[in-house]
Amino acid sequence: MKRAPESIRVTGVPGLPLIREGDDLPGLILARIDLEDGDIICIASSVYSKARGYTRNLSDIAVSGRASRIAGRTGEDPRFIQAVLDASQEVLLEYPFVLSEVSCGHIGVRAGVDQSNVEDDTVILLPPDPMAAAQDVRDRVKELSGKEVRVIITDTCGRSFRRGQTGHAIGWSGMTAIRDFRGDTDLFGHVLKITEEAVVDELAGMANFVMGESHAGIPVVVIHGCPEWKGHDNLYFNPDEDLFRKMLTGQGSGK
Amino acid sequence: MKRAPESIRVTGVPGLPLIREGDDLPGLILARIDLEDGDIICIASSVYSKARGYTRNLSDIAVSGRASRIAGRTGEDPRFIQAVLDASQEVLLEYPFVLSEVSCGHIGVRAGVDQSNVEDDTVILLPPDPMAAAQDVRDRVKELSGKEVRVIITDTCGRSFRRGQTGHAIGWSGMTAIRDFRGDTDLFGHVLKITEEAVVDELAGMANFVMGESHAGIPVVVIHGCPEWKGHDNLYFNPDEDLFRKMLTGQGSGK
Repeated sequence: MKRAPESIRVTGVPGLPLIREGDDLPGLILARIDLEDGDIICIASSVYSKARGYTRNLSDIAVSGRASRIAGRTGEDPRFIQAVLDASQEVLLEYPFVLSEVSCGHIGVRAGVDQSNVEDDTVILLPPDPMAAAQDVRDRVKELSGKEVRVIITDTCGRSFRRGQTGHAIGWSGMTAIRDFRGDTDLFGHVLKITEEAVVDELAGMANFVMGESHAGIPVVVIHGCPEWKGHDNLYFNPDEDLFRKMLTGQGSGK
Repeated sequence: MKRAPESIRVTGVPGLPLIREGDDLPGLILARIDLEDGDIICIASSVYSKARGYTRNLSDIAVSGRASRIAGRTGEDPRFIQAVLDASQEVLLEYPFVLSEVSCGHIGVRAGVDQSNVEDDTVILLPPDPMAAAQDVRDRVKELSGKEVRVIITDTCGRSFRRGQTGHAIGWSGMTAIRDFRGDTDLFGHVLKITEEAVVDELAGMANFVMGESHAGIPVVVIHGCPEWKGHDNLYFNPDEDLFRKMLTGQGSGK
């Protein structure tokens, strides 16, 4: 006999307008979807940044020698590369694409600087403090609706070994990034080998799937019925334990 | 006025027994959940392998010099390392963990060989042909129920730069791995920069989230209401375009 199992519901917020600087994103969301306590709102970082004005006009950017040199190799606009360098805390790779760490600890291609879905001449930066961004949305939803939601700020990133990009979390509030099973045992009483699951990235990936085509149509997704978990927020490797980073910066071959 | 938006439902299949060799996994699933045409069944590769007998007894494994040497460095059972080497098409890294490519093109830690949720002395291998495994489940569901479902076989993998593991797809049927936006334009008419989305991994990640604790309790998840997409199946980089692989095998520093 079949039981009626519990489901998680993942829903794109319909009908959001093109977001512009100064827009009250939480208010726009609440006008379009009913939220409940515990719901997880996933927001494309580009849309949060547009609402908050974390953008730059290429025509205002003075190009350094380094940006000019890199742009010459990659074939990109030197002003765009300068925006990427300005957003980077540490550049790990210049070619075939700039790969760098931004101040929150996230490592991404072109420092997450984006030219999609904005007017010519504008680039969108990642929110400078994505954790504060997630908290900000959460607080505003509480203020407007009284609901205690959880929030993930997403970005789209490539991976090693596999083609194609997937959604990743760069900021979160109301949850931990990692679900921590350390010390737990399996069904046979063995201590588990897989002990830390980056659940915030798994949820960000699903949200990105629903957002679809470069976040053009649906930049906000709500996950309903999602259980809570215990864990921690140490999502980013420390530089000295990060094998790939060490290889990129020449501190070890891994052999 | 709020519209009732379309949702995707993600549901763990409740009450599956511990899977043993010879079990009819599709039959066990169909006895526990109603499936509809287009539903995506996500199955932990370990459970598919157990049903199909893709396991080895450590006591049957003769250890090579190489396995013995690696195990001495990693502190693992030399017989386990031998099973990993036997499952590997190309070893990319031996220490601090074995990272290798298996025959389907997937690159993973310890070649995906697993010791969780099995009796002592048994290791679970990845299905040797995960694409065929997905097709096999799909065909059997059709045979038993008449339903045309889609299938993803999942594994749990680490990532570069970020701590924690996430669900990844190693086999799929009824869909393409990549959603391909190449040539599409954004809302302002610009050609999109993010053009290939590894949707099969985003869905596998969400399934892995629902599976939870080392797949012990819920090894099968159904995604309902998921739209279709167009794309291709070239999920794995070719070796000559894979920056990290080149670094690991000493064919380029990336600088």
